[in-house]
Formats: sequence, C-alpha cells, structure tokens
Amino acid sequence: MAAAEIESVLPELFRGIDLAGVFLNGVLGGIIARRRRFDAVGFALLAIVSALGGGMLRDTLLQAGTPVALTDPYYLGTALAGAAVAFVIRLDGTWWNRFFILADGMVLGCWAATGAAKTLSLGLGVLPAVLLGVTTAVGGGMIRDVAVGQVPAVFGGNTLYATSAIFASGALIAVDAAGEPELGMLAAIVVGAGLSVLARWRNWRLPEH
Amino acid sequence: MAAAEIESVLPELFRGIDLAGVFLNGVLGGIIARRRRFDAVGFALLAIVSALGGGMLRDTLLQAGTPVALTDPYYLGTALAGAAVAFVIRLDGTWWNRFFILADGMVLGCWAATGAAKTLSLGLGVLPAVLLGVTTAVGGGMIRDVAVGQVPAVFGGNTLYATSAIFASGALIAVDAAGEPELGMLAAIVVGAGLSVLARWRNWRLPEH
Amino acid sequence: MAAAEIESVLPELFRGIDLAGVFLNGVLGGIIARRRRFDAVGFALLAIVSALGGGMLRDTLLQAGTPVALTDPYYLGTALAGAAVAFVIRLDGTWWNRFFILADGMVLGCWAATGAAKTLSLGLGVLPAVLLGVTTAVGGGMIRDVAVGQVPAVFGGNTLYATSAIFASGALIAVDAAGEPELGMLAAIVVGAGLSVLARWRNWRLPEH
Repeated sequence: MAAAEIESVLPELFRGIDLAGVFLNGVLGGIIARRRRFDAVGFALLAIVSALGGGMLRDTLLQAGTPVALTDPYYLGTALAGAAVAFVIRLDGTWWNRFFILADGMVLGCWAATGAAKTLSLGLGVLPAVLLGVTTAVGGGMIRDVAVGQVPAVFGGNTLYATSAIFASGALIAVDAAGEPELGMLAAIVVGAGLSVLARWRNWRLPEH
Repeated sequence: MAAAEIESVLPELFRGIDLAGVFLNGVLGGIIARRRRFDAVGFALLAIVSALGGGMLRDTLLQAGTPVALTDPYYLGTALAGAAVAFVIRLDGTWWNRFFILADGMVLGCWAATGAAKTLSLGLGVLPAVLLGVTTAVGGGMIRDVAVGQVPAVFGGNTLYATSAIFASGALIAVDAAGEPELGMLAAIVVGAGLSVLARWRNWRLPEH
Repeated sequence: MAAAEIESVLPELFRGIDLAGVFLNGVLGGIIARRRRFDAVGFALLAIVSALGGGMLRDTLLQAGTPVALTDPYYLGTALAGAAVAFVIRLDGTWWNRFFILADGMVLGCWAATGAAKTLSLGLGVLPAVLLGVTTAVGGGMIRDVAVGQVPAVFGGNTLYATSAIFASGALIAVDAAGEPELGMLAAIVVGAGLSVLARWRNWRLPEH
C-alpha cells in the first residue's frame, strides 16, 4: 500500500482498537466481579467503570461536553457485552493471558493518545495532555480498584503500566507537534504496546521507595 | 378527582418525594456516621454525599450546568437537617425500618425517573438514560460506601436494589415514549417502590457468581 | 505602608500562598507515597490528587470551565516538584512539623476562601459557597485518603480541620458581603490558620458520636 492508502485506513483501525479496548476492559471488570462473587448488577457496574471510567473522568475534567462514553451509541453496549462474556465464560489460561497483555498494551497506547490529543486540541499544555492521556488509559482501572477496596495497582508494584501510558502520550505529543496527528496515534500505540509488553515480559518495574 | 386534577398535583407530589428523599438519605448518612463515631463534620459530609452524591455525579457527567444539588436552595439544607436528626435521635426499631423501606423505595423510583428523564431530555439514548437513572438512585450510596471503606452494597448481596432502579428507569422511558412524562414518573415510583419492597420482603436477590 | 499599598500587594501574596499550598500538598502526597513504598508514578499521582484534587472537584462541580488545575501553567509542575522533593528528602522532625502546621493552616484558609469566593461569583448561595470552600480546602486530602484505602481523616478524630475551613469560608463570605473581597481572603487566611494551629496545639476536637 502507498503511504496515502495506509493513512486512509488508520481512522477505522483506531476506532477498532478503541472499541476493542472498551470490550476488553468490560471483560476485565467482569473477571474482577466474578472473583468477588458480585451479581449481574455488580458485573455491569464494574465493566462500565473499567471500560469507560477513564474517558468519563477525562471528559468531566476537560468540560468540553457530555462524555463520549455517553454520547457514542456503541460504548455502553460494548462494555456490557464484555461483562456478559465474563459472566458466562471463565477466561484464563496461557493463551488468553498472552493475547490479553498484547491487546491491553495496544489499547493503553490508543487511549493515552486519545486523551493527550483531546487535551491539546482544547488548547491546554503538554503537562495536562500527559496527565489526561494517562488518566484516559489507567483512570478506569484506578476507579475500579478503589471501588472494590483495593489500592490502585498503578501506584506501585506493576510493570511500567502507567509509565507506558506516559511514553505513549509523549509519542503522540511529539509526532502531533510535527504536524502528523494520525501517525502520532500510531506511534503511541506502538510505544504503549511495545513498552508495556516488554516490561511485562522482562518484569521491569520502577524502583519502589 | 378527575384525571386532569390528578395530573395538576403530580409535580408537587414529585417535589415532595424528591425532598423527602434528600432528607431520608441525609438521615441514612448520619446513621452510618453515628455507627462509625464520626464527628459533626463527618455527619454533614456523609449526609451530603448520601443525599446529593448521585445527582451531583449525574449532573457532572451530563455537563448541562451546575448540579441541581448546588443551585436548588433547599437541597443542602435538607440533607444537613437529616444529618442533624440522625445526630440527635437514634433511629431504629421495626416501625422505623418498615417506614424506611417503603419511603426509600419510593425515592429510589423517583430519583431513577428523574435521572432517566433528564438524560433523555438532553437527546441521549436509552442505555445512557438507564445508566444515569441508576446513578441518580444509587450513586450517592455507592460513593458513601467507598468513602467509609466498604465495597458498595449495590455490587452484590442486596435485595434487587439497583435492579429496582433499572426497572423504574425503564418504566419512565417507556411511558415517556408514549408521550406521558408525568405518568412515567408516577409509574417509576410505583415500580421502584413495589419491586424494592417486594424484594426486601421476600428476600429476592440476583444470583451471585 | 498605607492601606492602599497593602491592598496592592495582596493579590501576589494570595498567589504565593496558593502555589505554596500546591507545593506543600504535593510534598504531603509524596510523604504518604513514601510511607506506602509506591513508585515514582504513585508519588506523582498522589501528589497531584493531594495538591489539586480539591480544586478539580470544585471546578467540575461548578461547571464553569476546565479546572484551573489544568489551565494554570504552574499548578501541575509545582505539585510534581513537591512529589520530587518528598521522593528525594525525608521530611520530618519538630521544625518541619511546626512549619508545616502553620503553612498548612494558611493554605487551608486561602483555599477555603478561593472556593467560597468562586461559588459566590457564580451566583450560588451561602451554603454551597461554604460546601465548596471546604471542598477546595480538604477535598484533595479526602480523595487521597480514599485512594490509599483509608477513611478520610476529616470525618472524625482530627483537630478541627474541616471546621477551620468552614470558619474561613464564613469569614470570606461575611467580609465579601461587606464589599471587601480582598480583605475577606486575608480574613479567611488568618481565621483558617489561627483556628487550625490553635486546635492542633490545644488538641481541640469536635465531640465524636
């Protein structure tokens, strides 16, 4: 494919990764609900928080209109479909884990880039863009952890999870500044997935205090 | 009374149930503050979160102006009055519990309908309307539970509490679609109170995982 | 200095106290992250929540534009600088504690006044102004406490902390109503610092239930 052709399919690719992320995080919320023996309402609420909480938090902070999680007709249904799958099927095993780590890394990069790009587009600076990139990527998981009484995993002891989101946001910001927003999104997905998968594989962690 | 007369008193009835709900949930926040031996500030904060947290969460998510909880001159004072009553009087006993379950069910239906109706009025879809109906009805209690270090009761082990709010939101949406918003509110209150009281009485629960 | 001269330096003084508060609460978030052995991401997130969470909560509730915490170019960097200091230096000892209690009290008064003044300026009433004054002053600490799995200290067992914020908000509202907003801010800082330092020194507490 020529470069122009590649660029023309990127928006659909990003949309696909985004919705896959909503589905995956809906499943993840459901898996945690299953572990806690919650009922169907608990599955639905944890799936919605996991899948859409980060974007909702970003959009309420930015105050640039009703959160996409509520206006996009696919988001809520996709998150609930994830919850339903986790309700019916018990997902584990080596292949599920390998698939999940890769897919989760791509989603992390995609969401970090979305958050950073939206923040920049509203005229805010680089630091808020990184913060809201990270919020979009890890905020839903943080709220979910707090809701079930756990200290958020991103505070420590994880393998460069929020750190990957910081670098993915940075990749978007750098390439976006060069006038290539779509390539920036692609770069963020590659950086986010690459770094988070590598860190998980090699068990890289930030030094804890 | 003729149908037209009934309809003309409905708005005041709904307003009464709404404010009674703020008061009751202020009392409920205060009862929990008393159990935890909090001081007067803790009573006030838990009462405000319990009574107004769901509506505040709905209104910050909808981003259609400053939350009603702050602009309505009666809400904050009514929630604090509930806290004050719980501070002074120890509320328990069979009759209090019976009264509370019925009143709480009516409020649940009223708030679910309010949240669903407001969401629809902003042009959002049915799924967001149900989500924000449930948020209005149970969101304050969820935030309160998390704030005192408990896993929200609505996640599991309760007697169809959020489920009643789902059905109440659905009742509002159905009757509202038939062009009768006020009857929709009435239907939601009947459905919410009926189902939650029945479920409490018969100890109905969703299957847990 | 003449009264007019004093008034002309007040805005810079308030700005200084405000930014000092962001820094101090960034340090405080970092101190808690150090105690919990979080990594650098945990330090940064707790610092941001501690230092900017109250103002963010106020601004999302007021819905009068993107939170100052994101639009002001100094806030995020200052909070992160506080986290960095706490990461590198272990802050304790009698003199640090004495300095901290006084500085924290001034910040508490300054933030309570800022929140109350902003609420009044949007045409809201006295009760919401007090609520959002207290939210600005103690909201960040509350969210931080909940995030690390603790019941917020302001609910009980503290030495008139939120109470000092209530009185500081009240001082701003009273002096502002007399047509002197800048003196109101000054009064709030004096009242907030005075009452909270005095309460800490004399171990004054609200009666617990």
